[in-house]
Amino acid sequence: MRMEYQKLHQLFMGKLLKEGFELESANLLATIFADNTRDGIASHGINRFPRFITQIRDHTIRLDTRLERTATFGAWEQWDGNHRAGPLNATKSMARAMELAHEHGMGMVALSNTTHWMRGATYGYQAAEAGCAALCWTNTTANMSPWGTHTHAIGNNPMVMSVPAQPEPIVLDMAMSQYSYGKMELLRETGEKLPYPGGFDHNGVPTTDPTEILSTRQVLPIGMWKGSGLAILLDLFAAMFSGGAGTVDIPVAEPNCSQIFIAISPRDESQLQTWTASIRHTMERIKTLCGSHGETVRFPGDRSVRQRRESLEQGIDVAESMLVRVQEL
Amino acid sequence: MRMEYQKLHQLFMGKLLKEGFELESANLLATIFADNTRDGIASHGINRFPRFITQIRDHTIRLDTRLERTATFGAWEQWDGNHRAGPLNATKSMARAMELAHEHGMGMVALSNTTHWMRGATYGYQAAEAGCAALCWTNTTANMSPWGTHTHAIGNNPMVMSVPAQPEPIVLDMAMSQYSYGKMELLRETGEKLPYPGGFDHNGVPTTDPTEILSTRQVLPIGMWKGSGLAILLDLFAAMFSGGAGTVDIPVAEPNCSQIFIAISPRDESQLQTWTASIRHTMERIKTLCGSHGETVRFPGDRSVRQRRESLEQGIDVAESMLVRVQEL
Repeated sequence: MRMEYQKLHQLFMGKLLKEGFELESANLLATIFADNTRDGIASHGINRFPRFITQIRDHTIRLDTRLERTATFGAWEQWDGNHRAGPLNATKSMARAMELAHEHGMGMVALSNTTHWMRGATYGYQAAEAGCAALCWTNTTANMSPWGTHTHAIGNNPMVMSVPAQPEPIVLDMAMSQYSYGKMELLRETGEKLPYPGGFDHNGVPTTDPTEILSTRQVLPIGMWKGSGLAILLDLFAAMFSGGAGTVDIPVAEPNCSQIFIAISPRDESQLQTWTASIRHTMERIKTLCGSHGETVRFPGDRSVRQRRESLEQGIDVAESMLVRVQEL
Repeated sequence: MRMEYQKLHQLFMGKLLKEGFELESANLLATIFADNTRDGIASHGINRFPRFITQIRDHTIRLDTRLERTATFGAWEQWDGNHRAGPLNATKSMARAMELAHEHGMGMVALSNTTHWMRGATYGYQAAEAGCAALCWTNTTANMSPWGTHTHAIGNNPMVMSVPAQPEPIVLDMAMSQYSYGKMELLRETGEKLPYPGGFDHNGVPTTDPTEILSTRQVLPIGMWKGSGLAILLDLFAAMFSGGAGTVDIPVAEPNCSQIFIAISPRDESQLQTWTASIRHTMERIKTLCGSHGETVRFPGDRSVRQRRESLEQGIDVAESMLVRVQEL
């Protein structure tokens, strides 16, 4: 069914206030859950909302703590998220990285003890819409096997890169697994196969069957040994800079993720215009090169932007069963 | 055949001095070409050396220019490589990023107009051996097609992440293509197939045949649409921050690449020890987890370190035909 953005936002808002969030925090969280649903990422929007509330009730997510700065090193700082709601910690961390970038040209916040940030792109848009370029990532619980093994010992550690551009920022948001568990769960329900192999079956053979992969939990790292290696380095950076947990010490409920937020700020409006001109030039050249062969290029974030427009025109597509679950929370 | 490190170094050194490099530059370049060969990356060591000399003679690589700082923004700076030898520009840029990091906690150099840096890991080791963590990347000429197209419009843009660790730094060096053109050329010569599909044949079907892929030039991005997207963002960052060329404006000879060097420095010896302890903890836990299932994990850079030891004990493995080519330069 289709639902107006404001109605969905109000629904989230009401539930969050009931759980005890202050007005400002409830509003920010409701916006993030509504935006993610609007952009077609219901897995980190309405579909994830019931689990978010459950994690508040079982105290995985804490409402009674504060985000604390634990060390400063000039252009970068260490913060302790103290298990607060991941999207609140992440938004404040990116905002602080941008403040540091305004002061030092670039800035970084390394955040420990934070909970699931939902959709990484949220923080990429946050920076790019404010005229900054950003690079951020999170580690996760062990949900992937290092290449050549069948033992969950690394995370799929989503990373985000974003740049300010017109009419919309370019935002790349990619996990180190070829497909998300959420995507495979969706396809399992509809009985569809993955378009490309996304993991291994019980015989260790690559398969496009989401049911098999969800049973073995052997998801394919992007680029095989490459995504496996990148996942390891992203985790090492996040844990060492934040002083927090690496993937190997993060339980399944993910109460203590480590995250990195890097922002680079233009000095002034003129430099921002130079940046967006450089971006526009590259994108137009790529479009022209491919267009000359009758081909269309998909840029990172294109699908979200298209989905966003459709949602704002026609209402946000939400599963009725999920809506009922949220209403009953 | 096997060759002593010093002899290989002297051979490169002599040729570089003959081309007109000053002693210090010739020594650094000879070290980089010898190290890469020693570490098993002959494609960016001895095998690439003749082309490097050719590019000096045809003035793609300039000896009569200087690396110039063109703008400063606090913790990061813009430099113009003025088409000097890529490894010289890259080494100085990483050194400067580390200086900025010592001053500001973190630092970045965005470099324009530089030539091929050879092996990215070189600069990752440079930083990690000096106790810094580093993240760097380069763009390249258009050698890959955006996912969903068959038109070369993006680069395979190698990126490097490194951390100081004992006994050896952990250095990830990965291009955005699943296999390098160099690797496929080697396998074509020996008639071997790739272990996994590395590109597309003339019918657009994924194939493990290097000859087919070298003919279509349709290499597979890591993680398909994901590596394609990451290549685009790495290129946008490199071009916009350096004020230099994006992939779409880099000819095949690559006289004007754009590169990013980010270094993060520990404040003191105590923080460095905290970092290496965090890294050791994660690596040992991963090894233990996988080891409990009888599995061995390969960490990024492991193979290079193993090859390095073997080369230093038994001499460096060089193709005799290639040695003759270098001697005759």
